[in-house]
Amino acid sequence: MIIVMKPHAKPESVQRIKNMIESKGLDAHISNGKEVTIIGVVGDKSKLNDQNLEIFDDVDKIVPVTESYKLANKKFHPEPSLIKVGNTVIGGDSLVIMSGPCAVESAEQVLATAHAIKKSGAQILRGGAYKPRTSPYAFQGLEEDGLKLMKEAKDETGLSVICEVTSLAAVEAAVKYVDMLQIGARNMQNFYLLKEVGKTGLPVLLKRGLSATIDEWLNASEYIIAEGNPNVVLCERGIRTFETATRNTLDISAVPVIKEKSHLPIIVDPSHATGVRKYVKPLAMSAIAAGADGLMIETHPDPASALSDGPQSLTFEQFDLLCKELRPLANLMGKKF
Amino acid sequence: MIIVMKPHAKPESVQRIKNMIESKGLDAHISNGKEVTIIGVVGDKSKLNDQNLEIFDDVDKIVPVTESYKLANKKFHPEPSLIKVGNTVIGGDSLVIMSGPCAVESAEQVLATAHAIKKSGAQILRGGAYKPRTSPYAFQGLEEDGLKLMKEAKDETGLSVICEVTSLAAVEAAVKYVDMLQIGARNMQNFYLLKEVGKTGLPVLLKRGLSATIDEWLNASEYIIAEGNPNVVLCERGIRTFETATRNTLDISAVPVIKEKSHLPIIVDPSHATGVRKYVKPLAMSAIAAGADGLMIETHPDPASALSDGPQSLTFEQFDLLCKELRPLANLMGKKF
Amino acid sequence: MIIVMKPHAKPESVQRIKNMIESKGLDAHISNGKEVTIIGVVGDKSKLNDQNLEIFDDVDKIVPVTESYKLANKKFHPEPSLIKVGNTVIGGDSLVIMSGPCAVESAEQVLATAHAIKKSGAQILRGGAYKPRTSPYAFQGLEEDGLKLMKEAKDETGLSVICEVTSLAAVEAAVKYVDMLQIGARNMQNFYLLKEVGKTGLPVLLKRGLSATIDEWLNASEYIIAEGNPNVVLCERGIRTFETATRNTLDISAVPVIKEKSHLPIIVDPSHATGVRKYVKPLAMSAIAAGADGLMIETHPDPASALSDGPQSLTFEQFDLLCKELRPLANLMGKKF
Amino acid sequence: MIIVMKPHAKPESVQRIKNMIESKGLDAHISNGKEVTIIGVVGDKSKLNDQNLEIFDDVDKIVPVTESYKLANKKFHPEPSLIKVGNTVIGGDSLVIMSGPCAVESAEQVLATAHAIKKSGAQILRGGAYKPRTSPYAFQGLEEDGLKLMKEAKDETGLSVICEVTSLAAVEAAVKYVDMLQIGARNMQNFYLLKEVGKTGLPVLLKRGLSATIDEWLNASEYIIAEGNPNVVLCERGIRTFETATRNTLDISAVPVIKEKSHLPIIVDPSHATGVRKYVKPLAMSAIAAGADGLMIETHPDPASALSDGPQSLTFEQFDLLCKELRPLANLMGKKF
Repeated sequence: MIIVMKPHAKPESVQRIKNMIESKGLDAHISNGKEVTIIGVVGDKSKLNDQNLEIFDDVDKIVPVTESYKLANKKFHPEPSLIKVGNTVIGGDSLVIMSGPCAVESAEQVLATAHAIKKSGAQILRGGAYKPRTSPYAFQGLEEDGLKLMKEAKDETGLSVICEVTSLAAVEAAVKYVDMLQIGARNMQNFYLLKEVGKTGLPVLLKRGLSATIDEWLNASEYIIAEGNPNVVLCERGIRTFETATRNTLDISAVPVIKEKSHLPIIVDPSHATGVRKYVKPLAMSAIAAGADGLMIETHPDPASALSDGPQSLTFEQFDLLCKELRPLANLMGKKF
Repeated sequence: MIIVMKPHAKPESVQRIKNMIESKGLDAHISNGKEVTIIGVVGDKSKLNDQNLEIFDDVDKIVPVTESYKLANKKFHPEPSLIKVGNTVIGGDSLVIMSGPCAVESAEQVLATAHAIKKSGAQILRGGAYKPRTSPYAFQGLEEDGLKLMKEAKDETGLSVICEVTSLAAVEAAVKYVDMLQIGARNMQNFYLLKEVGKTGLPVLLKRGLSATIDEWLNASEYIIAEGNPNVVLCERGIRTFETATRNTLDISAVPVIKEKSHLPIIVDPSHATGVRKYVKPLAMSAIAAGADGLMIETHPDPASALSDGPQSLTFEQFDLLCKELRPLANLMGKKF
Repeated sequence: MIIVMKPHAKPESVQRIKNMIESKGLDAHISNGKEVTIIGVVGDKSKLNDQNLEIFDDVDKIVPVTESYKLANKKFHPEPSLIKVGNTVIGGDSLVIMSGPCAVESAEQVLATAHAIKKSGAQILRGGAYKPRTSPYAFQGLEEDGLKLMKEAKDETGLSVICEVTSLAAVEAAVKYVDMLQIGARNMQNFYLLKEVGKTGLPVLLKRGLSATIDEWLNASEYIIAEGNPNVVLCERGIRTFETATRNTLDISAVPVIKEKSHLPIIVDPSHATGVRKYVKPLAMSAIAAGADGLMIETHPDPASALSDGPQSLTFEQFDLLCKELRPLANLMGKKF
Repeated sequence: MIIVMKPHAKPESVQRIKNMIESKGLDAHISNGKEVTIIGVVGDKSKLNDQNLEIFDDVDKIVPVTESYKLANKKFHPEPSLIKVGNTVIGGDSLVIMSGPCAVESAEQVLATAHAIKKSGAQILRGGAYKPRTSPYAFQGLEEDGLKLMKEAKDETGLSVICEVTSLAAVEAAVKYVDMLQIGARNMQNFYLLKEVGKTGLPVLLKRGLSATIDEWLNASEYIIAEGNPNVVLCERGIRTFETATRNTLDISAVPVIKEKSHLPIIVDPSHATGVRKYVKPLAMSAIAAGADGLMIETHPDPASALSDGPQSLTFEQFDLLCKELRPLANLMGKKF
């Protein structure tokens, strides 16, 4: 941590900070510049409440030099993590595709989808049983009944299954049925929920919050890992910007940035990122070319009648075609699919 | 709802949509324009899953004409709501100030603060017992012990008290001690939690999410009211933008926009909006001049040693001075304080 | 400037940077921390091309500690600047109101407006002769004929006049007619134009760009001042965010932040910030309460038939009422109006 | 255009609008809904000043149904445009790479770069002679001397050359030396300059503004085409968001959205989008996979000593390697390179 003093800071202001730092067992390195003095703090900065240094006299600003996340940080864990979900491995040289409906609606819908996506090559079935919806009057999900339908589909097809959880009650139900838990974008900083999914030990797909920086996202993953659960996969699904041509703005740069800063795998969800079916394929392609470890893509037997997010869902035929087009690209990128 | 067709949409595409709309018991008004055809849907649009119309052939876009929130909507409830919290009324011609530390740390801190802010004119004591923090390694709050300290301060000073809740467990604990529940920015779309605080019937302060539109915010309030709890106060606390000179960007326009669209009271939190102590006063003044019903302002006996958000906290002396400066402005705006 | 090295940076990487810095006649202070080494650069950093240090081996990041603007910086010019426009002074204890139509349309319109706003207390007449419009098919302004009408209104009423300039040709024409030049938001980083208005010596109103940080805005003012023209007034007019309830988001915090970082006066334009007439008054009030030195407010004899930005324009009656309501607030804030 | 009335709008308010519309020779289709009345305007909406309808009594909002750009609109020009620059065609089945330094610094630098990029497969040499820089104290470019160096490189290698123009003077100089003019992000809404480059008839690369919507971007292209110059190529180079891990956020969705809305070719600039050399390759790959028609990539013989934007520049070796990796991907996407 670096403390930048204001121009013409009084020597006693600098001395007071130096004394405080040393009283905590840390070292203070002082550089007297032409215009400003800076103080480098050397040692374990958790001994300081760094923010509050800002209100000492003559302090201009505080500059952190190390990230606050440790367990998710590539600096301390250089090898990429491989996360096992049922028989599937996420990360490394495999490309994983999760697919299925936004919301679980019926046994027919889920089973038909499971068979179709399996045939096209997807490894994991997704389906929402607890749906966070902007309006209280929109369909809120089948809850535990939906989880049971996902389990049936898993038993019948051998696919692994993932469901979003939105409360402790949902976590307690979901662990009985699914292979992987999903934390949605709106709950990325629901720290209470992050700890709860951390305690389960199950693999967790952590979606990026609509306005979360990459740094905050990795800190959110740290909440899960700090509970003893290292099985975290990140999912970029678009951030909120001023542009309205797409529902969100897919931050494709997040893929290489995460690969640079963390060892966790990252997948991309082009369906939620755009909200528009015809943009799913180009963004799925771009995600793989950028180095993503997988994709989450919405499919539905009849998108026009879907109870949630129909306009972005692919039909089975469209999904099958997409998988066929993805395959040579995945191979070119050194990914098995 | 209006359906805008693509140029050169086929007549049969228009007919198919018309049939579908009418099959739901709604009316379809068709306008054939020079370039495009539009279809106005007349009737209760909840009979349609409006989004999925987008994937009918030749549809260009869907334009909603009515808001999805009803109970929070001024159109259906033109009189401003007055929300009672203990002996204090929020809304109407009163100006309410909530103040206290970001995090409850000790009995001494909370009691000293309660006495100080009461003397300066604040009506409600705030203090966090459950703290959502970006990093899992930062102080997370005293939890129920913190709630007890808030209750003690209430009993000793007669101030009403408000605490943030972050989980069902926190709600169940808080209802035993506090007069008002707070939903923080990060939980604004934690719909499960919104329903839970709705069920308590206690007044709820609903902070705006970092990237929530005003429309989403009002929809979030609708979740609480739909549980039979109309006692919602909104709190603008800054949104996330590209500007980094302040921690967030206070959206001061939200005050008149909420007054236009809703009957709910709105207060402003200049402390979290800026993260910088010296900007609290000008933004507090601007909030009142814009028509806000109150303020939430952080105070701490010793900001330099605060365990959370010290740099934005005022000392008691600074807070007292601020209240003295706010008073004539509040009166000018027709607010009692 | 501070250079933060990666963890485990090689000693020779550090040495190479130290050598380079010293070869430029600067000093390098090295602090070896527990996790990382930092290098403080002491001296005139313009001797370095600071950005490119980032690609030396083992460099993690570069942290600037001083602002790149000097002439606009309060650190080197602590007294607030007073800018004279005709007989009016902007800054200090006066409140200045600029008002008039978005676009100059006719002699009748401009003269009627000039008389009306003068009567209500405004000191400066605004009116656009060169209009930057999103679509090439929208009204583009009367150009020099518009400037002449502004001059007529000035001669008849004694008001000072301000017009936006969008090209060198417009600057050359405008200096013959107006008292103050305006650089619009879209041209805030048209550096060529900034230099040209700098050369004129006339007072300049520099509007903030839609996505400009405060730091970039002050750097833009530096372009004007560096040409020998210190007569710059800043104008906050809303930034672009995700919120769509208002056309832009008024960044009210910019007022105190500018007062902290610069000696230049700052005014606020609530008309462009919101794009909605009914929000002009609350935002005008909030701007003054936040400490703004003035306001720019659109008025039009007949907003419904205005050729540009009608929906945000006030009628003369509304403007007169607004001025009456602003007066006691201005006085409370210690501003003469 | 659709006019949405407020609930309980008075019949005379509706009638007044209907009369006004019809007085302009247009038709008004009225739909009386359960909650609201909507008025569809049929005919050439340029006869109305659409915005000002908003201030008629009882109007809630105005919803445009057609885009304001026509010449750039795919609806009226379904075939993709092919833009010829020297011997190179941009659009269709070719992949075009523009490369070179951010700023032209010397003959050696430019010639070495031209030879190197040609060898690797690039078709167009870029190099800035007029540099828009945030600070007036940063290197501003060699101006016409820089243009001459670009011409020399063109003559020696046969590459086509592109330079940014920032003023009329720069346009007048550039047309003597270069094959394509570039409008930078900061000048995307410098409408005066857009008209000037339109008049030259030379191909224009129009970069997207930092906070420009895709709709505004296409309207900016319309300014150029409306001058009789259809030779416009769009360039996505990142937008401004809250994320700071990269300098800007590459909006990769812009590629398919532009392909959907316009017939103009679109290329991507991963160098400016990220500002970080190591992210250039993954984003270049993702752009091609998303369907981009080309790339603009910064290269420099010695990035560490570049006078502008060194940290994002590739060395010749890195660029050569990148081209080798792009080739099979381009071919997979059906692009010749």
